[in-house]
Amino acid sequence: MAKKLVQNITAREEDFAQWYTDVVREAKLCDYSGVKGCMNYLPNGYALWENIQKNLDARFKETGVENVYLPVMIPESLLQKEKDHIEGFAPEVAWVTHGGLEELQERFCIRPTSETLFCDVWSKTVQSYRDLPKVWNQWCSVLRWEKTTRPFLRSREFLWQEGHTIHATYEEAEERTKQMWRVYRDFAQDVLAIPVVSGRKTESEKFAGAQDTYTIEALMHDGKALQSATSHFFGSSFPSAFGIQYSDKNNELHEVYETSWGLSTRIIGALIMVHGDDSGLVIPPRIAPVQTMIIPIAQHKEGVLDKANELVDTLKAAGYKVKIDDSDKAPGWKFSGQEILGIPTRIEIGPKDIENNQAVIVRRDTREKIVVSLDELTTKLAEVLETMQNDMFERAKAFLDSHINEATTMDEMNEKFNENLGFIKAMWCGDEACEDEIKAQTGGATSRCIPEEEEHLSDVCVCCGKPAKHMVYWGKAY
Amino acid sequence: MAKKLVQNITAREEDFAQWYTDVVREAKLCDYSGVKGCMNYLPNGYALWENIQKNLDARFKETGVENVYLPVMIPESLLQKEKDHIEGFAPEVAWVTHGGLEELQERFCIRPTSETLFCDVWSKTVQSYRDLPKVWNQWCSVLRWEKTTRPFLRSREFLWQEGHTIHATYEEAEERTKQMWRVYRDFAQDVLAIPVVSGRKTESEKFAGAQDTYTIEALMHDGKALQSATSHFFGSSFPSAFGIQYSDKNNELHEVYETSWGLSTRIIGALIMVHGDDSGLVIPPRIAPVQTMIIPIAQHKEGVLDKANELVDTLKAAGYKVKIDDSDKAPGWKFSGQEILGIPTRIEIGPKDIENNQAVIVRRDTREKIVVSLDELTTKLAEVLETMQNDMFERAKAFLDSHINEATTMDEMNEKFNENLGFIKAMWCGDEACEDEIKAQTGGATSRCIPEEEEHLSDVCVCCGKPAKHMVYWGKAY
Repeated sequence: MAKKLVQNITAREEDFAQWYTDVVREAKLCDYSGVKGCMNYLPNGYALWENIQKNLDARFKETGVENVYLPVMIPESLLQKEKDHIEGFAPEVAWVTHGGLEELQERFCIRPTSETLFCDVWSKTVQSYRDLPKVWNQWCSVLRWEKTTRPFLRSREFLWQEGHTIHATYEEAEERTKQMWRVYRDFAQDVLAIPVVSGRKTESEKFAGAQDTYTIEALMHDGKALQSATSHFFGSSFPSAFGIQYSDKNNELHEVYETSWGLSTRIIGALIMVHGDDSGLVIPPRIAPVQTMIIPIAQHKEGVLDKANELVDTLKAAGYKVKIDDSDKAPGWKFSGQEILGIPTRIEIGPKDIENNQAVIVRRDTREKIVVSLDELTTKLAEVLETMQNDMFERAKAFLDSHINEATTMDEMNEKFNENLGFIKAMWCGDEACEDEIKAQTGGATSRCIPEEEEHLSDVCVCCGKPAKHMVYWGKAY
Repeated sequence: MAKKLVQNITAREEDFAQWYTDVVREAKLCDYSGVKGCMNYLPNGYALWENIQKNLDARFKETGVENVYLPVMIPESLLQKEKDHIEGFAPEVAWVTHGGLEELQERFCIRPTSETLFCDVWSKTVQSYRDLPKVWNQWCSVLRWEKTTRPFLRSREFLWQEGHTIHATYEEAEERTKQMWRVYRDFAQDVLAIPVVSGRKTESEKFAGAQDTYTIEALMHDGKALQSATSHFFGSSFPSAFGIQYSDKNNELHEVYETSWGLSTRIIGALIMVHGDDSGLVIPPRIAPVQTMIIPIAQHKEGVLDKANELVDTLKAAGYKVKIDDSDKAPGWKFSGQEILGIPTRIEIGPKDIENNQAVIVRRDTREKIVVSLDELTTKLAEVLETMQNDMFERAKAFLDSHINEATTMDEMNEKFNENLGFIKAMWCGDEACEDEIKAQTGGATSRCIPEEEEHLSDVCVCCGKPAKHMVYWGKAY
């Protein structure tokens, strides 16, 4: 009997940070490049991003989004047009000062985000109500000069999409902000099998220049929260700074209202830390670049490799993404290889299986073995993948739910937070000083979001005892 | 009867350069951004690029290509590792000198191309024959500090894909170079309906650092050539400079052999200039973001808009990409709008058509009107689009063929070249001085390529009369 071999992966409970690093390396998702603080997205990691792009882009387009591409460089004067925005980003941008052999008259920064460029285009092209709304998006990379970096979670350059829209009315823009926030939430839950807590950010956690920021927050296996996508409502402040106005049917001039929303390769970090286990990655079937790995057993025996290759063809023809491991490694090593990569299922087929006209589907998440007649393999595999997708979500949801606690006093908050991190629901007065105090006392709990439907846990702020304004989800963030 | 209205587009024969600019602007493909020399790819232009990406990426993957993403910045020391390469690119890169609030110890350039980064990754990860080949590609933007720019054809930042591969043997790498060159040729011809002349570049026209460059060259309506994609064979010079070696089965060390290949948004310029006419863009059906525009006639009359919307639903359900122009503009304006955008077909439907259970398909290229029974619309439209695709290619091919001439003397070359530009086939001694002389005498003809199957037109060089080494296609290049 072949035994499972785990290669070079630290156990999660032993050292979660090291486990994460090990999985990223062993699954060959990405590595640090020679460019300090930047990552190389390797084939296995990039394939995940491609599938995320494809699925999310289709969801965007269903809501009327059009894709564009604007320059990678932003002139300094443009970045400075909105005061809060430049204050937020200036300390962390990279500056281009020379082009070709000349020194530039004005510096350009490499885009940390592109609100300013989108507004610049619209200031020159939007005139009438007929030009509205603009609902644009771009898939690109952005650069922020981070000091400490971690694969997918924080790096100087990362891949993302940034959607930017302008609208004729406040209400329409506000609704678009929430609509895209819901698109993210549904995508995370339905495709990535990642349940989230979602809501509005407090003043101190908002995006630089935004009036409101909506977020989805996922809970990692170590109990820390990961902000996984955000959607911002700017009101008219940003477009006003750029002089964007439109004339209505009566030729009267009005301001426009803006939104922006983004999801980045950070979400791959969430995928790893929500679903991965001590054997490596576990990829939800709906986003998996490879859905099943065929592993021939005793492949030197006559007919085994032929049959295995026949299965590859049959499954490919049925629309599955399939690979075969026909290397000369022992089956145990092949199992281990498939498990590290998180391929949702493997199909084992050996001489005895062939004799019985069967194969064995093994689920990556539960390791459940399902013996299937070869005649039913194509239909059964779809069922297994679908069940696995749902089970993965349910398991993650149960984990999340068991890590949401309530607190009405600071003692309670400290105790519950120190027990297993997770989210703590607690009332808040609305004062930033209390956010600072809670962070200091708990050793790192920050306000993650104010949910759409707030519960009334108490009349007063958990920290200062003054009247409570909101119920907040608190957590330790990545 | 509604008449066709042509908006703000100069006639091609009057001023081709102005016609090009007009079409790009009126079809809203792109515009110049506030960032000097850079372009904004607007929704209509970017949608073309998305379709090009989707089709070409699938062709790449069929040949075993894996996608990755490497950093946008390259340290100066890395760029300098291959002598010819840095000489070729140093004068036209942009330099990042500050990150956050600090001055950097080493400058980074924004990638003008990424051979150096790919080699850097492989130098750290490739050790054994088991690690080979690497067949990687990335879709990204690159930046070259151009002085004069034109939409799609030349801009400081442009979008492209760059494929990079390394192989265990010279032969395998050479074959990969040619394979990707064929992928480009087939894509241009089969999908974009752009016939090309293809072959190897001469020494003076090769890519910086390459041993051989293969090119596909398309002919624009004004008789000028456009280099549309290139595939480079580096031999082992480049990877050697980075110290990439692998050990074979006997543990002996060997050099690896490298290729790279790219196609950029320039190809959209070719698409415009090969197929466009005095009414605007003409997009080949296989790459069209919208395949047909439904135009209701007398839409205020009862039942017309309902029927038109019914057609939209029927065609969408059948898998077509459809839009409807139900604005309050007169039909002539709607026709004109669809023609400017180059949407391959429009479907006119009015009260009389509805009475007769028919609609009228109008082809964008020939303006042929095809009356179709509504019962047959979904099948007939596919036929029309397919026929149009083939006709567009045949027309472009006939134009190309009629613009290829032969010359055995400089007088003949000058005469034929001055007549209508196009390609001139002529023998060449292999000497760069003759290339310079031919360029000077003809007023701009450069060597475009040496075809795979050379013809023997004469024993001697068209320019100096010394023994001929190759037959070359000469042309005036964009």
